[in-house]
Amino acid sequence: MATVRLLTDDELSPEARAVFAEIRTARGTDHVNDFWRALAHDPVSLRRTWDSIRQVMAPGALDPLVKEMLYVAVSIANGCDYCIHTHAASARAKGMSEAQFMELVAVVGMASETNRMVTAFGIEPDERYRTPPGGA
Amino acid sequence: MATVRLLTDDELSPEARAVFAEIRTARGTDHVNDFWRALAHDPVSLRRTWDSIRQVMAPGALDPLVKEMLYVAVSIANGCDYCIHTHAASARAKGMSEAQFMELVAVVGMASETNRMVTAFGIEPDERYRTPPGGA
Amino acid sequence: MATVRLLTDDELSPEARAVFAEIRTARGTDHVNDFWRALAHDPVSLRRTWDSIRQVMAPGALDPLVKEMLYVAVSIANGCDYCIHTHAASARAKGMSEAQFMELVAVVGMASETNRMVTAFGIEPDERYRTPPGGA
Amino acid sequence: MATVRLLTDDELSPEARAVFAEIRTARGTDHVNDFWRALAHDPVSLRRTWDSIRQVMAPGALDPLVKEMLYVAVSIANGCDYCIHTHAASARAKGMSEAQFMELVAVVGMASETNRMVTAFGIEPDERYRTPPGGA
Amino acid sequence: MATVRLLTDDELSPEARAVFAEIRTARGTDHVNDFWRALAHDPVSLRRTWDSIRQVMAPGALDPLVKEMLYVAVSIANGCDYCIHTHAASARAKGMSEAQFMELVAVVGMASETNRMVTAFGIEPDERYRTPPGGA
Amino acid sequence: MATVRLLTDDELSPEARAVFAEIRTARGTDHVNDFWRALAHDPVSLRRTWDSIRQVMAPGALDPLVKEMLYVAVSIANGCDYCIHTHAASARAKGMSEAQFMELVAVVGMASETNRMVTAFGIEPDERYRTPPGGA
Repeated sequence: MATVRLLTDDELSPEARAVFAEIRTARGTDHVNDFWRALAHDPVSLRRTWDSIRQVMAPGALDPLVKEMLYVAVSIANGCDYCIHTHAASARAKGMSEAQFMELVAVVGMASETNRMVTAFGIEPDERYRTPPGGA
Repeated sequence: MATVRLLTDDELSPEARAVFAEIRTARGTDHVNDFWRALAHDPVSLRRTWDSIRQVMAPGALDPLVKEMLYVAVSIANGCDYCIHTHAASARAKGMSEAQFMELVAVVGMASETNRMVTAFGIEPDERYRTPPGGA
Repeated sequence: MATVRLLTDDELSPEARAVFAEIRTARGTDHVNDFWRALAHDPVSLRRTWDSIRQVMAPGALDPLVKEMLYVAVSIANGCDYCIHTHAASARAKGMSEAQFMELVAVVGMASETNRMVTAFGIEPDERYRTPPGGA
Repeated sequence: MATVRLLTDDELSPEARAVFAEIRTARGTDHVNDFWRALAHDPVSLRRTWDSIRQVMAPGALDPLVKEMLYVAVSIANGCDYCIHTHAASARAKGMSEAQFMELVAVVGMASETNRMVTAFGIEPDERYRTPPGGA
Repeated sequence: MATVRLLTDDELSPEARAVFAEIRTARGTDHVNDFWRALAHDPVSLRRTWDSIRQVMAPGALDPLVKEMLYVAVSIANGCDYCIHTHAASARAKGMSEAQFMELVAVVGMASETNRMVTAFGIEPDERYRTPPGGA
Repeated sequence: MATVRLLTDDELSPEARAVFAEIRTARGTDHVNDFWRALAHDPVSLRRTWDSIRQVMAPGALDPLVKEMLYVAVSIANGCDYCIHTHAASARAKGMSEAQFMELVAVVGMASETNRMVTAFGIEPDERYRTPPGGA
């Protein structure tokens, strides 16, 4: 029940077509997720979002599997069903076991529980947590 | 600006006192976070929450540092300032570098951006993401 | 999969019937959205909500199209699929182009990304942003 | 650090002044909460909001204390610190004990935990929960 | 469209089987909700979550119906469709009338409206609401 | 109470310094918001975020003032106090009147109220809203 039509390959602008080609190469599959087919209505946003995701999710100080699991956790907290499904699939493709997924869910649940309790209590960080590394 | 008074050690019920002793031992410090001092008004919840957190955050299929980073990510998405500060401190104590924290923030931001875009498009998971491991 | 039955015209109380008549006149169509058919179980809430929406969404310092776009943006951030669909339709009926919708989505995504990054950093408004127009 | 200046009694429009008089009478105190002093910049919204709150929070099928506790619970879930403080005060004034507040917090926390776990699992309501009272 | 397969009774570990038996006894029905069938992949979380829910939702300073209504209200604010359906059913089983449900919805809506308005104004609790019972 | 130290001009990497120079030129002021001073710990994210914001917020199918107001509305819904203050200031600098801000707040509140009510009712978009422009 999409709010915009999902574009077929034949309907892409040249700019969108180029991004789709990069997605196919990077993902090693001809399938392009429906998110990109919706976003292709705006080739500038499509390009920016694809470039940004590649940059943010690339190996760095955190390994790509941890990044995917963080992505899944945030998508749960933000209530995005589509993102949970696609990024859980990505995390599994990168090695996330079912036991790891279940622990991820437990952490997300636990954090959400205490997040709300703390909010209810209205408390501010203890003095010792107020100074960032390197000083205020 | 708390909604409940933070209890001092002298005001604890015997059940709360026992939990505080466990917290001090587990954390290796005499300091008990203000969250527990607020929750101590309800010793049954205090006991359940402390036991649950220890179980959920224990080493398992995921290592404790990854769990702490998931906790921080969810706390950001849920907007709990206290939890961000205390769990970022825990993650740093477990080895999170500043570069890792900055990448965590970038992933949380990126996920939140695409979460909302997907929600705007109203798309459902592509057919291939609808079947969980092991079959529907 | 509604939690309350959607009332048919025949089942309406006189108070609800009067509101439905106003909706039909204001919208220029015989169709009454399912939201109102659910809310009709509580004629007092139905009346208050309809009157409030008409007042809030009327032309004023902001024009009705901008108001509809704000409504869509908030509905995305709050994750209300029904509201996104119905208010995107209203915005389109008032002249929102597809290019405008795509830009709206880009802004909602961008804001959500930086909202979370700022929350992660725990920073407070710079001094210069703390004073409202006219003084504190 | 408000985004709008809080109006003093001397700065009120006649319409806002009339609402303030009603608030003072209804609450039995000369103090008018800062929320109303901010909202007074828009006397039409001030009137609508005050009338709506009085209607919604009045005794009905639910008693006023239960309504206040629901208000507090939602304010926690929505992360509104101001609303938590003011409505917790209202609930206490209507008889909420500290033990009741602590149980309220426990329920909010528990619900938030399972809400996220369910979202993670992506499950839809069991068949038996899909039909509202009176039929689909 | 679940992210994990729902386990049948035949696939349960002994620990999960024991929890399912308790659920059936406590609920007085052979039906076990799909949430538990998803969570059964992690018998430790299953046990902890079931024990926690029983403890939190038991009669105490608040009666079980009020607790269920708070659960429903929070589930609405957190956008968990499954939880709204199952806990609305529980609340109805405990006596919630349709008029009470409609008033609950009105309070949740009203609180959400003012929560956001207050957030927009950026105001902090009036001086008089900053001190918890018993002193700061 | 930031989680990372705000970098001074003297501590910037060459890449961050270049972005700061662009910010100063674009904004026409020597002041660089604290958000950028926090983000400067990660020059790659700083560059990507600055470039993205400039692209998304540039004049296009929507004018910059409408974009700023959408940004403010989303920041309210996401509960980001810092973002509300800074983008309300930007919107005012671009011409938003106080009457327009108050109407924006009213729309955000109204949308949030009905978003939650719809979620409570669990209704799906009416048939007529399910087809995007151009067909499914």
